Amino acid sequence: MADATKLEQVRQWTAEHQLDVTYVSNFHTISYLTGFESNPYERTLALFIFADADPFLFAPALEVEAIKDMGWPYQVFGYMDHEDPYALIAEHVRASCAHPTKWALEEGNLTLDRFQALKAQFPEAQFTQDLSPYIQQLRLVKTPDELKKLDIAGQWADFAFEQGFAAVKAGRTEQQIAAELQYALMKKGIMEMSFGTLVQAGEHAANPHGATNETKVKPNELVLFDLGVMYEGYASDASRTIAYGQPTAKQKEIYDVCLEAQLTTQAAVKPGMAAEDVDKIARDIITKAGYGEYFIHRLGHGIGQTDHEFPSMMAGNKMPLVEGMCFSIEPGIYIPGVAGVRIEDCGVVTKDGFKPFTHTPKELKILD
Amino acid sequence: MADATKLEQVRQWTAEHQLDVTYVSNFHTISYLTGFESNPYERTLALFIFADADPFLFAPALEVEAIKDMGWPYQVFGYMDHEDPYALIAEHVRASCAHPTKWALEEGNLTLDRFQALKAQFPEAQFTQDLSPYIQQLRLVKTPDELKKLDIAGQWADFAFEQGFAAVKAGRTEQQIAAELQYALMKKGIMEMSFGTLVQAGEHAANPHGATNETKVKPNELVLFDLGVMYEGYASDASRTIAYGQPTAKQKEIYDVCLEAQLTTQAAVKPGMAAEDVDKIARDIITKAGYGEYFIHRLGHGIGQTDHEFPSMMAGNKMPLVEGMCFSIEPGIYIPGVAGVRIEDCGVVTKDGFKPFTHTPKELKILD
Repeated sequence: MADATKLEQVRQWTAEHQLDVTYVSNFHTISYLTGFESNPYERTLALFIFADADPFLFAPALEVEAIKDMGWPYQVFGYMDHEDPYALIAEHVRASCAHPTKWALEEGNLTLDRFQALKAQFPEAQFTQDLSPYIQQLRLVKTPDELKKLDIAGQWADFAFEQGFAAVKAGRTEQQIAAELQYALMKKGIMEMSFGTLVQAGEHAANPHGATNETKVKPNELVLFDLGVMYEGYASDASRTIAYGQPTAKQKEIYDVCLEAQLTTQAAVKPGMAAEDVDKIARDIITKAGYGEYFIHRLGHGIGQTDHEFPSMMAGNKMPLVEGMCFSIEPGIYIPGVAGVRIEDCGVVTKDGFKPFTHTPKELKILD
Repeated sequence: MADATKLEQVRQWTAEHQLDVTYVSNFHTISYLTGFESNPYERTLALFIFADADPFLFAPALEVEAIKDMGWPYQVFGYMDHEDPYALIAEHVRASCAHPTKWALEEGNLTLDRFQALKAQFPEAQFTQDLSPYIQQLRLVKTPDELKKLDIAGQWADFAFEQGFAAVKAGRTEQQIAAELQYALMKKGIMEMSFGTLVQAGEHAANPHGATNETKVKPNELVLFDLGVMYEGYASDASRTIAYGQPTAKQKEIYDVCLEAQLTTQAAVKPGMAAEDVDKIARDIITKAGYGEYFIHRLGHGIGQTDHEFPSMMAGNKMPLVEGMCFSIEPGIYIPGVAGVRIEDCGVVTKDGFKPFTHTPKELKILD
């Protein structure tokens, strides 16, 4: 079971907003509130929370036993593939609440067709409240249990870097290096990466959204790693750029600028600072060094159950940092034809500053 | 570039429905229509198709170069993370079509909040047409190029079974076996599975939605494999159940029933048959043998760019099969405390019947 107070908080939110029903459709939110984690793909997995009645889960029949087994203390209703989920949902909702009029939805997750299917079952209902911002808010600040999982996920990313660096050899492809580090993780029982492992050698790293491919590592090139694992439903995400053989003066220069931006920003983070100001510290350093046009993405993103969460560390986001917020600090400089450098740690805001989840050294590592 | 005729078909559909704009939001659809494949996560990637003007892509700034490089012959507009994508989209759409009134949306993909952001930019617009069913229809019937990719993805699944079976040893965990087969694939450059590889030993396989875990393989148990890879944007998906040491009579019996259901169904498929009747053939065999209550999921699902597509092979789906449709035939029998068996091939409907993409033998393999 997840932290039951989160579910109670959403019930209270439902009551405070004078709503009858809150419909949770995002499987990550369901995992966050109930502890039951499963991607239903095209099937329907839903959690209904009522101001004045017990919540219930609605799930593919296949999942019902697993939900009971994990100790869900309320009702769970299943449906078979040939049944209409929204007709069944309507029955179950009305059994908990005779006149469900005012609803909150997860507008950032619910698709239009499902919304219309729901509306067809409840033609009199008002769907005026958006649950998504409240859930974002809840998920922004991590609990001690969540921080522990993020820390362990970070330790596995450090292990992956160690294995990946050891696998770098002239003539090896990016894919072969990624294969070695992922195999090392799997042998330890870490079966899922939080995103496709990125290994990019030389000029290839100048494309920050390229994929790991058959590019071979050559001497006197930089090699960029961006990777993370899933650990008990929580993600890690970190980047390191290393040199294979002696770097050129230009490669060394952009590495140093990027490193200064990363370290200075990380040291400056404190509660109360605006997210956009964190971005600005790194951006100013890179711009002043003459590489501003090559830093073509935001400084960072939140992390938790996925590696793409709030807050977004970028211009325009005035959100003040508070203790327990978790995000990445990942300046990058990508010069076509020369090299790409990115250095990234994710971590948590504490009263003393920024505590990273990954600890692989950031001074330029030069492999012989 | 993808098959340009698909994009033209959607333009014609837009014109025929007297629409001004069709907004494509699903990244799989964008890949299908343009050849550009990228999951934008929380960012916005969109394709706009007009009855009377050239289409354009709208993408995160990071992706613009890649889109140009792959030879997209029309305009592409980028946006930075701190910009409001829907404000920019509105400008670009109006530059292509002065009065965009009638719209089609992908209702099965577009989330409510994005719909509202779009509506705020076009308060006079009518969003009455759903593109999703038409795209499903297009994607249902595969082109020769798609079938080639599905075939190759299937060959890699066969390779994975071979590697996985060779890795089964007493005392090895499910995770260790999955690690070996995925490592073997990665060494060959196959970096992405189409879903989390499932290896389930003994009683664990009786939970068809369980995950690969630390369960150890023991002698005289069945071991279930369900796996697939991504190959050039197309998925494979296949299941085999093998015996480690001599199976018990009961295990052998449920295997034989499941195999008969799979083979009989596969041999019966032909164009014109209703999807639900395909399900019924397998279900009747399993039910007659007394195991109907243990076959708790639909017979199969479509496959293509993902392993969860239309058609759904289940009761209630009267869709007639046509040549070029691709789906799985995967009967399963799951008896808690005894064993789980699933046997699955995906394949394509041809004029002569069902041509599978995977060819690993289905007679019960007994490992010593």
